[in-house]
Amino acid sequence: MEAAARTNQNVGVTSWLPLFQNLKDKAAKLGKKLKKIGKEDPRRILHSFKAGLAISLISIFYYVNPLFTSLGSSSTMWAVLTVVVVMEFTAGGTLSKGLNRTFATLLAGALGLAAQRLAALSSHSAGEPILLSVFVFLLDIAAAMATFSRFVPEIKARYDYGVTIFILTFSMVAVSGYREEELIKLALQRLSTIAIGVATCVAISIFVFPVWAGEDLHNLLPANIDKLACFLEFKGLEREYFGEKMGSGQILEEASFLISTYKPVLNSKPTEDLLANFARWEPGHGCFGFCHPWKLYLKIGALTRQCAYSMEAISSHISTSKNSKKYVQVITDTEFKERIRIACAEMSSETGKALAELATAIRQMRTPSTAVAQHLSNATTASESLKTLSPAKDASLPEILQSATTAFLLSAVVKSAHHLATAVEELSRVAHFKRQDQAHKDSAVKPVAGGESPPHVVVEIEK
Amino acid sequence: MEAAARTNQNVGVTSWLPLFQNLKDKAAKLGKKLKKIGKEDPRRILHSFKAGLAISLISIFYYVNPLFTSLGSSSTMWAVLTVVVVMEFTAGGTLSKGLNRTFATLLAGALGLAAQRLAALSSHSAGEPILLSVFVFLLDIAAAMATFSRFVPEIKARYDYGVTIFILTFSMVAVSGYREEELIKLALQRLSTIAIGVATCVAISIFVFPVWAGEDLHNLLPANIDKLACFLEFKGLEREYFGEKMGSGQILEEASFLISTYKPVLNSKPTEDLLANFARWEPGHGCFGFCHPWKLYLKIGALTRQCAYSMEAISSHISTSKNSKKYVQVITDTEFKERIRIACAEMSSETGKALAELATAIRQMRTPSTAVAQHLSNATTASESLKTLSPAKDASLPEILQSATTAFLLSAVVKSAHHLATAVEELSRVAHFKRQDQAHKDSAVKPVAGGESPPHVVVEIEK
Repeated sequence: MEAAARTNQNVGVTSWLPLFQNLKDKAAKLGKKLKKIGKEDPRRILHSFKAGLAISLISIFYYVNPLFTSLGSSSTMWAVLTVVVVMEFTAGGTLSKGLNRTFATLLAGALGLAAQRLAALSSHSAGEPILLSVFVFLLDIAAAMATFSRFVPEIKARYDYGVTIFILTFSMVAVSGYREEELIKLALQRLSTIAIGVATCVAISIFVFPVWAGEDLHNLLPANIDKLACFLEFKGLEREYFGEKMGSGQILEEASFLISTYKPVLNSKPTEDLLANFARWEPGHGCFGFCHPWKLYLKIGALTRQCAYSMEAISSHISTSKNSKKYVQVITDTEFKERIRIACAEMSSETGKALAELATAIRQMRTPSTAVAQHLSNATTASESLKTLSPAKDASLPEILQSATTAFLLSAVVKSAHHLATAVEELSRVAHFKRQDQAHKDSAVKPVAGGESPPHVVVEIEK
Repeated sequence: MEAAARTNQNVGVTSWLPLFQNLKDKAAKLGKKLKKIGKEDPRRILHSFKAGLAISLISIFYYVNPLFTSLGSSSTMWAVLTVVVVMEFTAGGTLSKGLNRTFATLLAGALGLAAQRLAALSSHSAGEPILLSVFVFLLDIAAAMATFSRFVPEIKARYDYGVTIFILTFSMVAVSGYREEELIKLALQRLSTIAIGVATCVAISIFVFPVWAGEDLHNLLPANIDKLACFLEFKGLEREYFGEKMGSGQILEEASFLISTYKPVLNSKPTEDLLANFARWEPGHGCFGFCHPWKLYLKIGALTRQCAYSMEAISSHISTSKNSKKYVQVITDTEFKERIRIACAEMSSETGKALAELATAIRQMRTPSTAVAQHLSNATTASESLKTLSPAKDASLPEILQSATTAFLLSAVVKSAHHLATAVEELSRVAHFKRQDQAHKDSAVKPVAGGESPPHVVVEIEK
């Protein structure tokens, strides 16, 4: 018996040890993850302290200010609630939620009071049950209507939070059961509390290390375009296209890393939509006016994704070619292959340069340089040159397919890049970006020298 | 003077009239839009009334129940607040928010009480200002930590709302300034109110015309796969590939409608992520167990998008060919062209059939029939047959490009379809779908008769 008990105890200890180890591992993993998240964007750590600061400020205000204390402890809670719910990462997000909250409360409060008065008038002639039914019916209809309005995409995008608060406040006022004078006093008190909370959040968001959604969107677009440029300008890409062996394993790894840089662009739509939506609420700041054309940013984002879809096709083509050894070994028609290779290299690097210049232009808020048109026209020339090519007489389809498909897919990228350049030009016109020569004075942008550039350009890529 | 005044008045009336007309137009437009939204998914109208019902129920409960009334009017407000905030369109959404709210309140309440007690203990030896600083510092740190945790993607996806409520409740308890006994009473009261609100919402969500996120996700996937199948099986598509003239304008319009059906699939990721996230919270319902492998649905969704990217490339190829007349007119090598055309038609229609069968299998929750493998192997055979093709000796690259590129892009779709089929099989195995022969008894699925199917299949498409 005793031995059994001891064994049990041992089992108990040993079965607890791995559990503890497991927990420790998990905690270490979480710690690492948190560190990485903080490192990725240090403004996140700042935001966390800003949120803490806002709550602390409201709490101190409540402790210290006799005026505020007289509003009653329930008011403090509403102020804290407002701060916690309204405080967003970007200034636009905070403004959007804060203004939605304030105006929805105002509107719903007024309507709720009106509903109350209507019910009170009718209750003079009828009894309590009728009053109750009128209330409940009114409430039901109002809440249902407001809930349904949230399915309208435009309302969902901009006023979703406001509608929630509207339903909330309207219901609360309608069911409160207070007398009218009392209710008005309560409503004004609640409104002032919410206003104080919103003002605190908005002030901290805008004046303490502000994070502007507009600026984030403005930086996101060139970053995404640069990712595409990085894919196109990658020196080893053409080698990949034609299935040649790379120098070493390390370069191969680098290659697959660089080739997949464009992947996040494929799913960039939700982030862009959210940022553009918040950016519309932001006041003018830095180089962005109040009416900055954020809609054009969405258009540019969509065109960037269009390019990325073509790259996805190129990338899947490369992996297909790599996997099927048969394709690689039958290529014999070296002159034909070499000419396509040169054309592809030209298209790829020229389009890459054009995209990089477009990204730089957006980033520096200036009109794209004439180099863009030059690079794109070079790329188009290379794409047109393919039309005069003829494969050798004994060429079989697979070898033509392998080389020519890459060429076609690259032509599609060239075409998308043309559309992108047009959209960026439209943006620079509508948003009154600096003219290129003006911007040129204070930034070092190298224009392309001649019309013809060498077909095989070595481009260094920043890691 | 008088004349001038009259003119002014006239101007006033005439300038108001168009404004009124404008408002009327806008209202009519909004009405149409609301009607369309309701028609698209009638469950939205039901949901609106369910939300209204929940608020009404809580209000009646408050009016009628003497127990509830004794909790004080502030409690009612919290119950209404809970209902408004927690009620979501899908049962999973309501459950997710409701459970998050309840447990976050519980945890934060307990921690807040502990913090209060700690501060109270220290306040015996020190004065008020130190107590205040301790509070504020503690609050600041706790709120900042909780805010930062929202940047962790896993927490953001599943517990974002819970963390908000945690910060909220913790701050409220910490700043409340009540005595301890009073606070415990208040906390229990608040918790019970929230529990009543959450229970009402969850009950209405689950028992009154429930909308299951899992079911929506389960329907969304086959709908998306069907969109791809619809693109591939479209009879006129191959004619489009080869730039031939369509019969009439009406058919052309239909063509561009059918060809763009796959477009919404490109951006389906956020919807799928949201539904899968909500589906995990749902109890077993209908054919779905509690541990239904929703993650595999996300995998299938990603592979579906992969197919759609290739289709985007095909579609852009078609529009390119249409725009550049040069391409079309130089095609002379009719035999070569005809053979590619047949191969493309075969790949397209066979893959389309395979996808349609996969969609049906998911929809009927049965293992995909052997017809899928058959169709895919037919498509692969067609794709392989291209390798033996040789263009005529005097063929120039553009004409080869135009035909061959479509062929390559279709091969990419065939490859993606293979991956998709594997994923659907994995799902049917893990989720214990019915075996094909079992399901076969009660549903009419036509198996493919022979190994070879005609290269040119006419497929009817539902509008």
